[in-house]
Amino acid sequence: MIVLLKPGAPREEIERLRASLLTAGCDVREIETSGACALLAERYWEDPPTDLISQLSASEHVERVIHAGKPFKLVSLEIKGQRTQVKFGKSTIGDGSIALIAGPCTIADYESLAETADAAKESGAIGLRGGAYKPATSPYSFQGFGKDALRTLRRVADETGLAVVTEAMDPRRVEIVAELADMIQIGARNMQNFDLLREVGKQPKPVLLKRAMSATVDEWLCAAEYIAREGNEAIVLCERGIRTFERSTRNTLDVSSIAVARTLTHLPIIADPSHSAGYRRFVKPLALAAVAAGADGLIVEVHPRPEQAIKDGTQTVSTDEFRGIADAARRVAAAIGPHEDAFVM
Amino acid sequence: MIVLLKPGAPREEIERLRASLLTAGCDVREIETSGACALLAERYWEDPPTDLISQLSASEHVERVIHAGKPFKLVSLEIKGQRTQVKFGKSTIGDGSIALIAGPCTIADYESLAETADAAKESGAIGLRGGAYKPATSPYSFQGFGKDALRTLRRVADETGLAVVTEAMDPRRVEIVAELADMIQIGARNMQNFDLLREVGKQPKPVLLKRAMSATVDEWLCAAEYIAREGNEAIVLCERGIRTFERSTRNTLDVSSIAVARTLTHLPIIADPSHSAGYRRFVKPLALAAVAAGADGLIVEVHPRPEQAIKDGTQTVSTDEFRGIADAARRVAAAIGPHEDAFVM
Amino acid sequence: MIVLLKPGAPREEIERLRASLLTAGCDVREIETSGACALLAERYWEDPPTDLISQLSASEHVERVIHAGKPFKLVSLEIKGQRTQVKFGKSTIGDGSIALIAGPCTIADYESLAETADAAKESGAIGLRGGAYKPATSPYSFQGFGKDALRTLRRVADETGLAVVTEAMDPRRVEIVAELADMIQIGARNMQNFDLLREVGKQPKPVLLKRAMSATVDEWLCAAEYIAREGNEAIVLCERGIRTFERSTRNTLDVSSIAVARTLTHLPIIADPSHSAGYRRFVKPLALAAVAAGADGLIVEVHPRPEQAIKDGTQTVSTDEFRGIADAARRVAAAIGPHEDAFVM
Amino acid sequence: MIVLLKPGAPREEIERLRASLLTAGCDVREIETSGACALLAERYWEDPPTDLISQLSASEHVERVIHAGKPFKLVSLEIKGQRTQVKFGKSTIGDGSIALIAGPCTIADYESLAETADAAKESGAIGLRGGAYKPATSPYSFQGFGKDALRTLRRVADETGLAVVTEAMDPRRVEIVAELADMIQIGARNMQNFDLLREVGKQPKPVLLKRAMSATVDEWLCAAEYIAREGNEAIVLCERGIRTFERSTRNTLDVSSIAVARTLTHLPIIADPSHSAGYRRFVKPLALAAVAAGADGLIVEVHPRPEQAIKDGTQTVSTDEFRGIADAARRVAAAIGPHEDAFVM
Repeated sequence: MIVLLKPGAPREEIERLRASLLTAGCDVREIETSGACALLAERYWEDPPTDLISQLSASEHVERVIHAGKPFKLVSLEIKGQRTQVKFGKSTIGDGSIALIAGPCTIADYESLAETADAAKESGAIGLRGGAYKPATSPYSFQGFGKDALRTLRRVADETGLAVVTEAMDPRRVEIVAELADMIQIGARNMQNFDLLREVGKQPKPVLLKRAMSATVDEWLCAAEYIAREGNEAIVLCERGIRTFERSTRNTLDVSSIAVARTLTHLPIIADPSHSAGYRRFVKPLALAAVAAGADGLIVEVHPRPEQAIKDGTQTVSTDEFRGIADAARRVAAAIGPHEDAFVM
Repeated sequence: MIVLLKPGAPREEIERLRASLLTAGCDVREIETSGACALLAERYWEDPPTDLISQLSASEHVERVIHAGKPFKLVSLEIKGQRTQVKFGKSTIGDGSIALIAGPCTIADYESLAETADAAKESGAIGLRGGAYKPATSPYSFQGFGKDALRTLRRVADETGLAVVTEAMDPRRVEIVAELADMIQIGARNMQNFDLLREVGKQPKPVLLKRAMSATVDEWLCAAEYIAREGNEAIVLCERGIRTFERSTRNTLDVSSIAVARTLTHLPIIADPSHSAGYRRFVKPLALAAVAAGADGLIVEVHPRPEQAIKDGTQTVSTDEFRGIADAARRVAAAIGPHEDAFVM
Repeated sequence: MIVLLKPGAPREEIERLRASLLTAGCDVREIETSGACALLAERYWEDPPTDLISQLSASEHVERVIHAGKPFKLVSLEIKGQRTQVKFGKSTIGDGSIALIAGPCTIADYESLAETADAAKESGAIGLRGGAYKPATSPYSFQGFGKDALRTLRRVADETGLAVVTEAMDPRRVEIVAELADMIQIGARNMQNFDLLREVGKQPKPVLLKRAMSATVDEWLCAAEYIAREGNEAIVLCERGIRTFERSTRNTLDVSSIAVARTLTHLPIIADPSHSAGYRRFVKPLALAAVAAGADGLIVEVHPRPEQAIKDGTQTVSTDEFRGIADAARRVAAAIGPHEDAFVM
Repeated sequence: MIVLLKPGAPREEIERLRASLLTAGCDVREIETSGACALLAERYWEDPPTDLISQLSASEHVERVIHAGKPFKLVSLEIKGQRTQVKFGKSTIGDGSIALIAGPCTIADYESLAETADAAKESGAIGLRGGAYKPATSPYSFQGFGKDALRTLRRVADETGLAVVTEAMDPRRVEIVAELADMIQIGARNMQNFDLLREVGKQPKPVLLKRAMSATVDEWLCAAEYIAREGNEAIVLCERGIRTFERSTRNTLDVSSIAVARTLTHLPIIADPSHSAGYRRFVKPLALAAVAAGADGLIVEVHPRPEQAIKDGTQTVSTDEFRGIADAARRVAAAIGPHEDAFVM
């Protein structure tokens, strides 16, 4: 936002306007050229409220107030004015409770999946995750058991009453995945696969949109806008860690992005502490940090015997550990109270 | 850690060893060359426990187990075997409670500092922060009021009973700062100013060591080792956000680093949500996320009227907001319970 | 590579082996546990040569030498043993000359494209680039003129004798693009869109594979392996800048990746200085730096009147500027001489 | 720069102004609020030229043109108006030739240093580098031989006629280093050690200022401004690689920073390909890329027998390899011609 001042605006008035902008949470920089002075005020998370603009414009020393909008509309909190709740099977994400989704990285046999699902449900999970079609950096790595795995996932979900989320990677396979899943995951590597985004936007099942490893929050929300624009606003965002120089964890969980995105969009946001951590030992603290930062839920890699998991065993927690995470996450959420209360200071 | 197998080790035995390593939290990679096979197991946070090594070595198919140590010793949790509590004035950091330090970015007048200190104390803060000598990117920016500011800080601290932390940047000024402060801060830019580290290591006041913007956790702990090696182990680590591509916050608060560092060092760790966030609105969620990830305390920029703060007003919260943060932080810590319990899964 | 020493290996022998490894370009770290000693030697760019392994193994104090392979095979220089030349229309990329491809970001009218093509050809370009289907961060941004643009591109190419490269984003549109283009571009955002990679791998036209904004060199080569594995080894790699904290350029051109990739793969590598720079003024120095680092060619955004370009005008050079870049690039390449000569020291 | 338009400015006029800004190399964004329209034009590398401002202001539809300045003055190319040449011993850096500085990471014995110096001189080097006081991440790593090493360095330099550059880390040791060296190096870790910067600014020897691992170009130039402001403008900037996610090289040589800095400052800029590469094999391509991007010189780690170097042997080239680098660097510089010519398009 640019607040352009008339020539000769007195110093006290400039300071008064500057204070108003700071109070409104803006980062303010003063620029001046041969008499002409302007305040450049940036407030990252949303456009300035109308009453602030009116108030600034009302000053006799202000010539004009100009601001640019955000590149997304349908997913904007400011424009919609209220938070979205996304139906996921018989449950809801974004209703104030902590939505928990658990399951193995990759779906293998029926037995261990059923065991995981039972334990997850007992710990309060509403959803079951598991890979059928797996993105793998190398073509020689395991790519998932495909449609068979999808069917196993569906069967276990039906037996336990959990809802199912799994990834679609190819626009031509969205239909198959949508048929068997309750929510379609768009993986981090496909966050800007625009044709895939459009395809999942055209079908009615909700979409779990993971943030790409090096996407800004704005780019992430623009990706969601691609889906929403096709008619599907049942989108759940998922922070899963960004790529930085630090190697002690697989990725760097960016809890700030959760706090920032909450101010920009009405969509619910969950976190994936497993892919962020990369190591089983750090899954719990990252899960709790995400909840404390405002996440509406968690998606966690869980296996009854992590050391036997087909893939990503290093970052998979046991069903017992998951219970500990689930309980603590709920206690942290209760300690903080309703988000609006907590963060709109 | 390298687990070297004898030629002809059977597949089942390799899998059994692999599972032991995964159970111990290692990331395991198998490498093989013409018959010789080895397991490369990485467990970031500490050296493998002796009993794991014994157990692995006991296998008749294992030829040898080899591992490298961490480049720090005195600050290592494994070596010391118990957590350190750091005395800060009459209070303690690292005793299980959430240590809160509050104050303006830069010390200006006595009145507003006293007002801040009174409000901070009422909210449960144990320490007062404030810049007297300020690092500034440009030489034309404000650099602090120097010794006069130090004296104001001391006076206000004495009147309220709060302890004082302030930054030293020049090895030649450590003595002056140590005389008036209860803890000496080493700023992010000076984390690898080794001569300064040695100087604060030679005097008895505790040291608050901020992580550099692009330092790995190992480099951070090596910096602490420089201080410890001169005889001063009263060190408090402070995560203040790392530099990444994301610009919606000033820096990216790396909560993982808190969780990781807790497994590596016995030193207490606090977080600075103000410099991480850069915007007042995000200070609270980041503060709570840090506590949920295992931080022993918080250092927060607070001013009675942030819009009048000399510097960094954009990221400074009001005294009322600070009270909300302090209360919520304590509730989150209570919800999680003692850390050891929570994170050693 | 791990060089495991027998117990009691004398210090001089360890030092001798260490020196051999250093001479071979490895980064060497010594690790030791209760008598057992090993040298951990990393040589990023390729597996250790067989003769080095033989030489090390020959020492009476070495017990065993173990090493892990790279996760790609078909695109590996070591495995293929000779460099690949890729046919692009009537020209060749990777034959020792600097391959130049020029054109607008987005194809608009026939006239300006023809004007660009004529000028590019005169400057020695072999290819014409231009977007028909454009990836755009926001769904409200311009997405290209689609098939009409493809036809214009083909027509201009045929008239000038230039070959054509343009992007495919949807696996379902690969066929249309392949029909009209001489090379199919996979954009940075789709570098790990594995279904798209497989699709372009199944058709015979060469593929220009851009590196993703946060992909490591290994991940980039694994993406190429996906294409090669389907039968198409006519792949040209393209470095286009990575995402870092620095904002003075749109991306950070990573010239090291060119030098590193040349040691790992037999595929030709070109650079895109336009998307790296983001500003017209920096296109030339970045183009020359890429050539000096070993690039086999350049793909540059060119428009007769950059200020009238539909998209990315800021980073588009004029046809005159392109001539300057082309001439200088050839002079730099001639000054360096054949790559093998230059960089295998 | 903000170009504020009067209400009702016709579309054609807005487009005309936009084209002028694009022509001047600006990135232009249009923002509009209820009738008021403005063009936000960013041109990273310097303030807009006076004649552009006059031209824009002359339009009857422009109400006002406003722009912000850079946070540095003395080191600004625009303000000084001509490039600085820095005397280094009997030679000059920034005079159009490629200044070459060579030497071991750490100074050990007289013999190998003398051998290195002789070979470097024969290859055309003007300076000798070598560490006497070494920054080391861990306090247990080698820290250099101190004053004895300084004396050896001085002796060898005097015997060969080369000038000497070595690092100072402690403001209290600047005098000792200045006494024996011809140029004082400020290492990457100390780029924002402001007291050290002031200290080297107060003495007359030239200063080699390395860019910090995560410093922006602006921050780097602000650090130079600290030195200049104390009266010493004999500053040589040195790009040595930034920290990114990529690990195939030790750091990522940011050639763009050389091109960008050249447009912002009158100070000469050299590059350190050794610390960027981390591996001996990549030193040459990175050296040539830096020269092609506009570097005025190179500082290279050289040792007669790299495998015997005390530190950093992995990234040290032999004296023979250095000759190859030196010869190729001069050929590349000649191929490009004078910089002004080349890059001010």
